[in-house]
Amino acid sequence: MKLTSLYTIASLELAYSSTLVFAGRPQSYKLNPDPEGQYPRLGACPDEHSCIFPPDLSQFIPGSYFDLRVELHAYDTSFTNKTVEPYENFKTTVRRNNGRWVDVDQFFNFEETPALENWDFEWANTIESVVSEDVAPVPVAVTSRIWRKLKFDKPGTYDVSVQYGPKEGYTVRYTVIEPKKPKKKAKNAILFIADGCNIGMITAARALARKHTSGKYHDLLSFEHFDNLGHVLTNSVDGLVTDSANSASAYATGHKGSVSALGVYADSSKDPFDDPKVELITELIRRRQPGKAVGVVTTAAGQDATPAAFYTHTRERGESAHIVDQLVHGVPDWVDAVVPDVWLAGGAEYFKGEEALNQTNYYDLLEKEFGYQIVLNKKDLNNYHDNDKLLGAFRTGNLDVWMERNIFNNNTVGNGAAPDLSGNDALGIDQPGLEDMTIKALEVLKKRGGKDGFFLMSEAASVDKKLHPLDFNRAWADLIEMDVTIQKTVDWLKKNDEFEDTLIVFTADHSHAFDVFGSVDQKYMAQHDSNKDMRDSIGLYAASGWPGYFDNDNDGFPDNWNPKITLAAGTNNYPDHYEAFALSSSEPRQPSVSDDHHGYIANKKDQAGKYGKGLHYNGNLPIGNDQGVHSMADVFIYSNGPGSDNFKKTIENWNVFYGLTEALDLQRPSKHEKKNKHN
Amino acid sequence: MKLTSLYTIASLELAYSSTLVFAGRPQSYKLNPDPEGQYPRLGACPDEHSCIFPPDLSQFIPGSYFDLRVELHAYDTSFTNKTVEPYENFKTTVRRNNGRWVDVDQFFNFEETPALENWDFEWANTIESVVSEDVAPVPVAVTSRIWRKLKFDKPGTYDVSVQYGPKEGYTVRYTVIEPKKPKKKAKNAILFIADGCNIGMITAARALARKHTSGKYHDLLSFEHFDNLGHVLTNSVDGLVTDSANSASAYATGHKGSVSALGVYADSSKDPFDDPKVELITELIRRRQPGKAVGVVTTAAGQDATPAAFYTHTRERGESAHIVDQLVHGVPDWVDAVVPDVWLAGGAEYFKGEEALNQTNYYDLLEKEFGYQIVLNKKDLNNYHDNDKLLGAFRTGNLDVWMERNIFNNNTVGNGAAPDLSGNDALGIDQPGLEDMTIKALEVLKKRGGKDGFFLMSEAASVDKKLHPLDFNRAWADLIEMDVTIQKTVDWLKKNDEFEDTLIVFTADHSHAFDVFGSVDQKYMAQHDSNKDMRDSIGLYAASGWPGYFDNDNDGFPDNWNPKITLAAGTNNYPDHYEAFALSSSEPRQPSVSDDHHGYIANKKDQAGKYGKGLHYNGNLPIGNDQGVHSMADVFIYSNGPGSDNFKKTIENWNVFYGLTEALDLQRPSKHEKKNKHN
Repeated sequence: MKLTSLYTIASLELAYSSTLVFAGRPQSYKLNPDPEGQYPRLGACPDEHSCIFPPDLSQFIPGSYFDLRVELHAYDTSFTNKTVEPYENFKTTVRRNNGRWVDVDQFFNFEETPALENWDFEWANTIESVVSEDVAPVPVAVTSRIWRKLKFDKPGTYDVSVQYGPKEGYTVRYTVIEPKKPKKKAKNAILFIADGCNIGMITAARALARKHTSGKYHDLLSFEHFDNLGHVLTNSVDGLVTDSANSASAYATGHKGSVSALGVYADSSKDPFDDPKVELITELIRRRQPGKAVGVVTTAAGQDATPAAFYTHTRERGESAHIVDQLVHGVPDWVDAVVPDVWLAGGAEYFKGEEALNQTNYYDLLEKEFGYQIVLNKKDLNNYHDNDKLLGAFRTGNLDVWMERNIFNNNTVGNGAAPDLSGNDALGIDQPGLEDMTIKALEVLKKRGGKDGFFLMSEAASVDKKLHPLDFNRAWADLIEMDVTIQKTVDWLKKNDEFEDTLIVFTADHSHAFDVFGSVDQKYMAQHDSNKDMRDSIGLYAASGWPGYFDNDNDGFPDNWNPKITLAAGTNNYPDHYEAFALSSSEPRQPSVSDDHHGYIANKKDQAGKYGKGLHYNGNLPIGNDQGVHSMADVFIYSNGPGSDNFKKTIENWNVFYGLTEALDLQRPSKHEKKNKHN
Repeated sequence: MKLTSLYTIASLELAYSSTLVFAGRPQSYKLNPDPEGQYPRLGACPDEHSCIFPPDLSQFIPGSYFDLRVELHAYDTSFTNKTVEPYENFKTTVRRNNGRWVDVDQFFNFEETPALENWDFEWANTIESVVSEDVAPVPVAVTSRIWRKLKFDKPGTYDVSVQYGPKEGYTVRYTVIEPKKPKKKAKNAILFIADGCNIGMITAARALARKHTSGKYHDLLSFEHFDNLGHVLTNSVDGLVTDSANSASAYATGHKGSVSALGVYADSSKDPFDDPKVELITELIRRRQPGKAVGVVTTAAGQDATPAAFYTHTRERGESAHIVDQLVHGVPDWVDAVVPDVWLAGGAEYFKGEEALNQTNYYDLLEKEFGYQIVLNKKDLNNYHDNDKLLGAFRTGNLDVWMERNIFNNNTVGNGAAPDLSGNDALGIDQPGLEDMTIKALEVLKKRGGKDGFFLMSEAASVDKKLHPLDFNRAWADLIEMDVTIQKTVDWLKKNDEFEDTLIVFTADHSHAFDVFGSVDQKYMAQHDSNKDMRDSIGLYAASGWPGYFDNDNDGFPDNWNPKITLAAGTNNYPDHYEAFALSSSEPRQPSVSDDHHGYIANKKDQAGKYGKGLHYNGNLPIGNDQGVHSMADVFIYSNGPGSDNFKKTIENWNVFYGLTEALDLQRPSKHEKKNKHN
C-alpha cells in the first residue's frame, strides 16, 4: 500500500508545552475531562478519530516486547450520513528523543507494511443508547494496522504519530526507561495478592485474629511487620473502577489495561486474540533469567483473571480453554510460552473433556510433552517431593473457601467437582488451602530454580469472590488464611535460608467498599423482628465494644465463628437483600435472586439475612446485578526484603511491575536474550 | 485510713508468663475476649471488680505526668443481694523492674494517703437493660482513690497492683521508655488532621482534583509526595470504633482514650473534671522547650474534640465553656495551662456572653491578662503582622465549609453567627479558610518560636462533619482544601527556609466507610423516576468512565462542582434517606428528619436525594441516629522531614505521640524541667 499524501506532523508541536511530574514526562493536554463520560468510544483513545496502542504515556523496559496497533475510527454521531468512509489513508511515524520522524516500517525494519484491517463496531455513546432500544448506537468503521513483536532497545522518549488528514493527527509519547541496577538483587520474589481486599478488610481481620488489652493489640498481622507500606492506585484505562484482569495485568506488564483484558491493550475488534500485546514479567524472566523458576498459585480457577495475567494474552478473561492452552503453547508471533514450573489451582474442567480446547487431554499432554507431574488432591500435593514441574488442579471451578474446607465440609458433599472429571465430589477436606499450595510451591521452586531463584504469584482469590455476594465471614476467613500463609512463608524462607534474598510483596488488585461501623448482637437481632429492635442490636462508638472472637489455639484463626457479638459491617453497593450480619452455615451466601420482571430481588432463603426477616437493603446498582461490585479506593501494598523500597509511598498499579523487575534485575538485558529480527 | 489487712500479691505471679511483641512487653492473659460484649462495665477494666488507670500496658515518657486512679466496683449482677458492700479495704502497691513491692504512697512520696472517694453508677450490662425499661441496670458501688501529678523519672517496667481480698487482686504493668534522641531533631512539627477521612476519600479527592491521560494521573495529591506513608490503628479503650476526642487525645498524650474523653482516662464518676489525667504533648513542650511556639488551627469550633485535645483535660468533650477557660487557666493540681501562641477557629460563643464560663469576657481577659490580640474575620486575620499571641474566632459554632465560603455564600446569609455575638451574620466570604489560618499561624509561630521552632496542629474538621450527613460533595471540597493547604504549607516552609527542619505529619483520626463504586449520570437520574431507570444511571467497571470535573485554573479545586457525570459513592451506614448523588446547593444536606413515632426518617426536602424521589436507602443504625457514624478502618499517615521514619508502616494511634516527641526531642528531660514534689 502507498500513502496518497504525506501529512505534516503539525499536531505534535502543539501538543507538548507545560510540565507534568507524576506520569513521568513533560506534556500539556487539551483538557477534555469528560469526553464521553461513562461511555467512551474505546479506552485510551482521547483523540477524536484515531487510537494508538500502547497509549500515550506508556512506559517500557529496554528490550521488552510489545505490539503497536493504530486504529482509525470513522463515524457520524449525528447520523446525518448514511455511511461514513473509513480512513484508508493514514501514515504512522516514529521518532526518538525528539529526533527525525521515521516511517514506522522503516523504524522497526519491517520489509512489508502490515496489512490493512477492517471491521466495524457499535459505539453506545450515551446512557440512552445503552438502556433504551429506541436509541441506536453509533456505527464506527475501523481501519487498522498492527506491528507485532516490537521493542525499543535504547532508553529515551519515543513519539508515535498517526496522520490521517491534512491537519488531522494524533501523537503519543512513550518513555523507555534507563534500566535500574538494584542496590541488592532479589534472588526470589513472591507476589501475594488478596483479591478485592481493601484496608477496611485488613482492619477487620486484625479484630478477629488478634488479641488486645484495653484496645491495645498484642500483635499486628504478619505482613504488617514488613519493611514497607504503600498504596496502589487501581484505576484502569477504561475508568475509575477496575476488575481483576486489567489490574493483575498492570502488575504483570507495567501497562494499565482494560476491564477483562490480560496482557494486551483492548482494541475495538471482536477477536479476543488479536489485540496488541505487552510482555509479561514471567516472559521476561524466561528470556533474561531462564534458570529462574516460575510459579502460579491461586484458590480460584487457575484460568481466572489474576493467575492468568501471569501467563496469558487475551482480551477476554473468560477464554478459559485458550488460557489453559497458552500455559504451554503461548501465542503466535510472540515470545515463548511461560510454561510455569508450578501451577496449583482450581479450574480442572479445562484440562480434559468437553470444555478443554479441542477436547485435548492437557493432563496427558503436560505429563508427556512438558515434563509435568500432575496432582489432583491435597494428599498427593503434600506427598509430592520430586524435582519435576508440578501442576495441581484440585477442583473444577474455584476451590472451595476456607470455611467450606475447614468447617462446613458438608457443604461440599455433592459438588461433583472432582478434578478428574469423574463426576465424583471434590470434598473440602481433600482440597489444599492457600498455605498448603504456597509452601509446596516454594519447595518445588527452590529445587528447580536453584541459585537462580524463583518468582511466585500466590493469590487469595476468594476474598473478592465472597465480598461480591456480601458473604463477609467467608471473605474474612480467606483473608486470615492469607495472613497465616504469609507468616508460614516467612518461617519457611528463614528455615531455608532464603529470607534475606527474597522480596515479598503483598497487595490487592482493587477494593471492595468494605468497612466496620460498629458491633452487632446478632443473637438479639435473630430474636427480634421489628425494624427498631433489629437496629437496636447494633452498637456504635463506645457501645461497639469488642466482638466475641477468640483464638485460644493460636493457629491464627478465630476458634469460634459465630459469637453473639460480631462486626456490624458491609459495603456501600449491593442488590436488594436482607442483612442480619449472621454467618451463613447451610450454604455460601446468595443475597439476591432473579425475578423475571424486576431484575434481582432480595433472597428470602439467605440465612445471613434471617430468611427474609433481617434488615432490608434496597439495591443501588443497575438491577441486573445480583451482587456487589468493586470500588475505587487505593489498595495497600506491604513489602519486605531487597527492593521493597520500591513499594513505599503511593504508586500506580503499573509501577508494581517496575518495582518487581528492578528488584529482580530484569530491567537490564541479559546474555540469554535473543536478538529480534525487527530491532 | 488504715488497711485492716495486707493482702498478698498472689495474683501477679500467675499473670505473667508468655511473650507478646507488639504491645511492648512480655505478658500472658486470661483470654476473655467478650466479657460484656457491647456493654462493658467501664473501658479498660478487664478485672472483675477493680480498675486501675492508666490501664494495663500503658507507656510513659520519663518525667511525664499522670494521675493514678484505683476504683473498686462492688455489684451483684444476679440482683440476689439488695445492697452490696463497697470495697473499703484495698491496698495499692508499686514496684519497678520486678523489684520490691512498695506502698503507693511511699513510692510516690505522698505524706498522706489520698481520701477514699465513694460514688455509684448504673451498669447497663446487656442490650436488654439498654433498650428496655423493664430490665434494670446493675447498680455498682464504687470506692476509689486517686494519686495526682505523678511521674516516673527512670525507664523500666512499673507494676501497679491493687489487692482487695485474700486472693482478689489485679495488677497492671507500665513501661517507661528509654528516651530516644532523634537522629536529626525536628525544629518544627506540623500535625495536619483531616477529621474522619478514610483512604477512599483520598482516592476520590484525587479523581476530582487531578488530571489523567488514559487512566494515568499527571500528579498525585500534595501529601502523597511525602517521604513516608503508614497506617494508624484507631480503636479506643472502649471499643472498635473511636470518636474524635479519644483519637486526638491518643495523638496528644500517647494514651488510648475513651469516647468523649480529652487528656484523661475516663473513670466511672459523674464529674467530668475529676478523671485521671495524662500529660499533653503541648504541656510537655511548655515544660521542656518553653521557647517553642504552639498553635492550634481548625475549621471547627475551637472547643471541638480534635483541637481541644491539645490543651484540655476533661472526660466530656461537650464542656465547651470550661474548655475555653482551660486555654489559659488550665486545671488544678496539674502543670501550667498551654496558653497557645496561636488559636484560630470557630466557637466564638464561649468567649463572652451567656454561654461563656461564668459569663466571663474571655476576649477581654485574653487581651488584657494574657497578651493576645484578637481577630474576628478573614480580613483582620490577613492584616495581622504583629508578634503577639493571636486568637482568632471567626464564627459561633463550626466555621462554614469551603462550599459555603467559596460558592454558596448566600447560604451563610442570616446565620447570625458573628463572633462578636452581635447577632450579625458571619458571612462565608468573611471567614478564613484552612489555608488562610494555617499560613497565618505559621507566620506568627515562626516569629514567636524563633530558633526554638514551633508545633502546630491544623485540622480540616468538616471532612468528618459533612460525611456524617452524607454530604459527600462538601466533604470532598474540605479535603481538597486540606490538600491545597498542605501544598501551600510546603511552599511557605521552603520560602522561609524551614522545610528541612520541619516534620510534617498528615493523618486522620478515624474513618468513615466512604468509597466510590462507579460513576453516576446524575442528570439522567434527575430526569427519571422509576427505580430501574435511576439505577441505570450508575456506571460500573468499564462503564464507570471518568467524572466530569476539571481544574482548568489549576488552583487545585475542580472549577465545576455539578457535572453530568459524578461519583457513585457513599458509606455503609446511615439513617433512612434518599440518594440521588446530587450536589445540594440550597442548603447543607440533611438526609433525615425526626418523626416522633419512628425515630429518623428520610427527608423529603433533601435536594441531594431528589426531594424524596431519589433511591431510598433504609437505615441500618439504631433509629435515634439522624446521620452516619464513624467506621473502624485504619487511617493513613503521610509524613515528611526529620523524624518521619517514625510514621511508616502500621502504628497504633498512641504511637503518633511517641513519633512526634522523639522527632522534637521531647522525650529527654530538659534543663527547663521543674522538679516535682512527688518524685
